[in-house]
Amino acid sequence: MTELRNQSVRDLLTNAKKASKTLARAERNAALRAMQARLLEAEPEILRQNAVDVQQERQRGTGEALLDRLTLTGARLREVAQGIEQVIALPDPLGRTLDGWRHPKGMQIEKVSVPLGVIGVIYESRPNVTVDAAVLCLKAGSAPVLRGSASALNTNRVLVRAMRLGLRDVGLPEDAVTLIDSADRASVTELLEARGLVDLVIPRGGAGLIQHVVTHAKVPVIETGVGNCHLYVHRDADLEMALNILLNGKTQRPGVCNALETLLVDREIAPVFVPLAVRALRSAGVEVRGDEDARMYAPGVEAASDTDWESEFLDLILALRVVDGLSGALEHIARYGSQHSEAIVTSSLHSAREFQESVDAAAVYVNASTRFTDGFEFGFGAEIGISTQKMHARGPMGLAEMVTYQYRVTGEGQIR
Amino acid sequence: MTELRNQSVRDLLTNAKKASKTLARAERNAALRAMQARLLEAEPEILRQNAVDVQQERQRGTGEALLDRLTLTGARLREVAQGIEQVIALPDPLGRTLDGWRHPKGMQIEKVSVPLGVIGVIYESRPNVTVDAAVLCLKAGSAPVLRGSASALNTNRVLVRAMRLGLRDVGLPEDAVTLIDSADRASVTELLEARGLVDLVIPRGGAGLIQHVVTHAKVPVIETGVGNCHLYVHRDADLEMALNILLNGKTQRPGVCNALETLLVDREIAPVFVPLAVRALRSAGVEVRGDEDARMYAPGVEAASDTDWESEFLDLILALRVVDGLSGALEHIARYGSQHSEAIVTSSLHSAREFQESVDAAAVYVNASTRFTDGFEFGFGAEIGISTQKMHARGPMGLAEMVTYQYRVTGEGQIR
Repeated sequence: MTELRNQSVRDLLTNAKKASKTLARAERNAALRAMQARLLEAEPEILRQNAVDVQQERQRGTGEALLDRLTLTGARLREVAQGIEQVIALPDPLGRTLDGWRHPKGMQIEKVSVPLGVIGVIYESRPNVTVDAAVLCLKAGSAPVLRGSASALNTNRVLVRAMRLGLRDVGLPEDAVTLIDSADRASVTELLEARGLVDLVIPRGGAGLIQHVVTHAKVPVIETGVGNCHLYVHRDADLEMALNILLNGKTQRPGVCNALETLLVDREIAPVFVPLAVRALRSAGVEVRGDEDARMYAPGVEAASDTDWESEFLDLILALRVVDGLSGALEHIARYGSQHSEAIVTSSLHSAREFQESVDAAAVYVNASTRFTDGFEFGFGAEIGISTQKMHARGPMGLAEMVTYQYRVTGEGQIR
Repeated sequence: MTELRNQSVRDLLTNAKKASKTLARAERNAALRAMQARLLEAEPEILRQNAVDVQQERQRGTGEALLDRLTLTGARLREVAQGIEQVIALPDPLGRTLDGWRHPKGMQIEKVSVPLGVIGVIYESRPNVTVDAAVLCLKAGSAPVLRGSASALNTNRVLVRAMRLGLRDVGLPEDAVTLIDSADRASVTELLEARGLVDLVIPRGGAGLIQHVVTHAKVPVIETGVGNCHLYVHRDADLEMALNILLNGKTQRPGVCNALETLLVDREIAPVFVPLAVRALRSAGVEVRGDEDARMYAPGVEAASDTDWESEFLDLILALRVVDGLSGALEHIARYGSQHSEAIVTSSLHSAREFQESVDAAAVYVNASTRFTDGFEFGFGAEIGISTQKMHARGPMGLAEMVTYQYRVTGEGQIR
């Protein structure tokens, strides 16, 4: 078994690139099954190494929420293994004829899905991402190069070792899954600059990580996961529906990117809806920060600062603003939105259309919760992240977006 | 009419972004027609300003080939106007329902094509690109920000002024077409770093320009147009077909990216095919540079240097190498190819499949000329360039690739 620890990033990437070339035509599902078996077999060692990581972080004074994200248990590991099962069951995204036609001179042109090659994944503490991301990349025929956080290094090492053993079991090159085994920031820079070796980098984590990757990368990047999502309640809204969608968006899982961060209320219904909403939010334990108009209708609400409009709270906090109709809402969203998910509640067909056609975001909802922006909810079976950019993939990024295509032209001697 | 000359790049881009938001729902074909009329009307002024540019370049000692690229004539201008006609006739790439389905809870999810926003186009001397690129971007609902070469600045100014007048004629904002009216390199840097204002930059020009853009851009880029294309003649090839495809690929238009640069000949047929090929190439005025083995079969052929394998000659020069069967060809292409277009001539089904499935390029040809990699030949009606990268668009990039999409979800109060 090759040790990853003493190899330069450039060598790792060169080996990954070479290994990636075998994947399109390999039995990738068999490899995933072998990896699953090796991961389950390695459970005692994985939990032991994870305990080392958790212990180290505890000694550094890391908070309980982060420690929980870092911790693996037997149950969580079996969930991860179950996730592999689900990916195996998904249709192969490669070799699909996406389009095809005949050239007037008689050649057949086919547009066929093919692998990207090497996909770098840079992520934060959750070690389950190590397996989830690797498995999705392999299913899509690309070799993952993983760079997790320093705090999970012992766990990630043993997870990757198990996956590489699985690859070897089915005769595939181990280097089809690679860990950058270094806590050094320079290794991230090397990955981000390796043009020709890395076909795509996906950062998964907070806004800081994503910003760093985007500004330093010389290889293609897909930005994921920053969501400053708004709900606009139009004057013609069903107010009970609006309350339900509001509470679902803010409280069902506040720490995720498709959760609501700001509520925009039409001035015409503000006297009725603002007090209703604030009461319901408070009962659900949500801190509300409002603009002056909102505070007029709901005394006791804290004043929102300018930064609140820009904030992805990822917490039980909501910014609240009274706006002048649809155009006021569109203006606010254009200024502060992160092009992730935006919603309107309205019974007006005209306003619904206007909202969907005017808002520049990956997913635009009419009378439904922003919480649905998710690869599983969209029926993609799995997702590597939610893209907030416009090139290549927008919104939930599943296997279909983790590949590229090529044109295959077959003729009988045609020339121009 | 607003003067572009005295505005900062940041102001230009801010105005372009604002103007872009009106385009998705504007009558874009009417705008294109008005622009066409204004361009034809401005012919005398366009030719006058173009003569100034040509005169300046001549005084600088610029060669005839470049001067010819820079020169506009009445006939060329009418060709440009005719090109607008063709773009008007193409179907609208926006508002297309690319996919759609029902969520189990009853919401309708639709994936709809929408504009990118602002597209920066950085290009070299040909002033017809000023109009061609602007027209395609507008048709796709995006606002073009054009940065041509300093040598064509007078021409570009009057072309853009005419197009802006056309926009005004139909009540659209002039800033939907913008010229960066500066010969200063810093203006390119500003464009490349304007995250949030520029949605895509497309460099059109030589390898140097593309390299500069790719390494300095902090906004998304589509690399276009570097083609080091190979033809591999398999031992089972129809040799007459191979000769035809070779001559067509190398000589029909040697200065374009889908022209052939290297011929790879199977060792088994080298004694027969190399002399045939060299004779035919020489008759067509092509200089051949061969490896040692090739020179054995065709005495008098100049020796190829290592850089010849990497060169996009864009000229009547061809590198020639004898390879050990299909695997030798695949190895050479993997090492030196630019992932543009690659071709095999063979009568073997197995070799044809193997070649198409193994070569990592935008277009892979069996028994047809690489010269077909082109938006018009592929039936896209027009193209903004040939992408040599894997993200978003690969190969000919037409209107369908010049847009993005969003998910529109419509429900009746659904929550998670």
